[in-house]
Amino acid sequence: MARVKSIGAPADGRSTRWAQHRERRRAEFVDAAMRAVEQHGPDVLTEQIATAAGVPRPKLYRYFDGKADLHRAVAERAVELFDAELEPLWHAGLPPVELVRGVVGRSLDWIGEHANLYRYLQRDVGSTGVYDRGRSALRSQVINVVTAYRDAIGAPAYRTDALAVGLVGLVEATVDQWLADPSGFGRDELTEELVRWIWAILSDLAQRHGVRIDPEQVVIAGS
Amino acid sequence: MARVKSIGAPADGRSTRWAQHRERRRAEFVDAAMRAVEQHGPDVLTEQIATAAGVPRPKLYRYFDGKADLHRAVAERAVELFDAELEPLWHAGLPPVELVRGVVGRSLDWIGEHANLYRYLQRDVGSTGVYDRGRSALRSQVINVVTAYRDAIGAPAYRTDALAVGLVGLVEATVDQWLADPSGFGRDELTEELVRWIWAILSDLAQRHGVRIDPEQVVIAGS
Repeated sequence: MARVKSIGAPADGRSTRWAQHRERRRAEFVDAAMRAVEQHGPDVLTEQIATAAGVPRPKLYRYFDGKADLHRAVAERAVELFDAELEPLWHAGLPPVELVRGVVGRSLDWIGEHANLYRYLQRDVGSTGVYDRGRSALRSQVINVVTAYRDAIGAPAYRTDALAVGLVGLVEATVDQWLADPSGFGRDELTEELVRWIWAILSDLAQRHGVRIDPEQVVIAGS
Repeated sequence: MARVKSIGAPADGRSTRWAQHRERRRAEFVDAAMRAVEQHGPDVLTEQIATAAGVPRPKLYRYFDGKADLHRAVAERAVELFDAELEPLWHAGLPPVELVRGVVGRSLDWIGEHANLYRYLQRDVGSTGVYDRGRSALRSQVINVVTAYRDAIGAPAYRTDALAVGLVGLVEATVDQWLADPSGFGRDELTEELVRWIWAILSDLAQRHGVRIDPEQVVIAGS
């Protein structure tokens, strides 16, 4: 630190530049790692990631604290990309059936296009917790949507929260099985099937409270 | 071996007795481990398992090939017990709504009474695969039941298989969340809610195929 000061460059300027450089390189390496996962599958070797990044393997570890840190960074980026894929839908003011169809369809598209990355992410369950946090974020969005209908329906909050969690589990289990064995279902057919299941539950819930949800009627949150 | 033969006892008689002894001791230690898990939680220490078994810790490892082997044995036993809890229901000839209520209710009871064991079992996801095998067994049973209605409904096999997988995911996600935060729901209320959700999907599926399933009408598999 003394030497840095003696040549006139403020220490924090240097360290800021290094931090920025480090962040940029990490992001580049994470992108490369994602390409390597897509190509080689969830059991991708660090060597293959280094090759995709165009650097020798030890260089990777100047930017990541070991394999787990690299894995976590890739998982976090994958969750970010998935969230970004769905983000516009939550605020699009879609009628309920269209919203369900949009969220299910885009999730299926993203997972179908990034099947290896999704499997890589799932390996993470119970270790870094990134997958669980990603699922929690998705649940929160679904809870927000269901909450927008709650007042109209008159169902208790804990029921609709539980339902949102259950619906995410319903879709997740079905999609995981579909990825493992996609025979039978095309993407569109599976989407329509999932939309029907979800809609059957939602409309039954409304009916029980003496309300009919209009599938084409937009409900604005908080209105 | 030569010494064994020289004293006149057949080697295979001895090894059979040893194998039987070993199996019995393993079973006793697994029972003790399960008590220790229930008492101390999913992060139970091997020391606490040894205490519950009333033996010094090294003695445990004369019967198990390390911690992973003990963990796998406990997980397998837990899945066996859970399966045994549900087993009578699959063949009881119950009307469909009663069957759904029975399976959901008994699952909730078992998981509620063995919450620490269930959490311990879930830690196993992706390691020994016992939890995944247990879930597959449950899915197969649900598929069997749904298959019994398939001919009547006229839905394609891959749809009803996917639905069975999805329903298990729906219940699993909801119950896991309920265990983490049971506020709001009582056991009976959660059971009824889950039964409604499942029933809403099943009756919608039947309706789409122009069939009304009578919730009180027993369908015998294969009939």
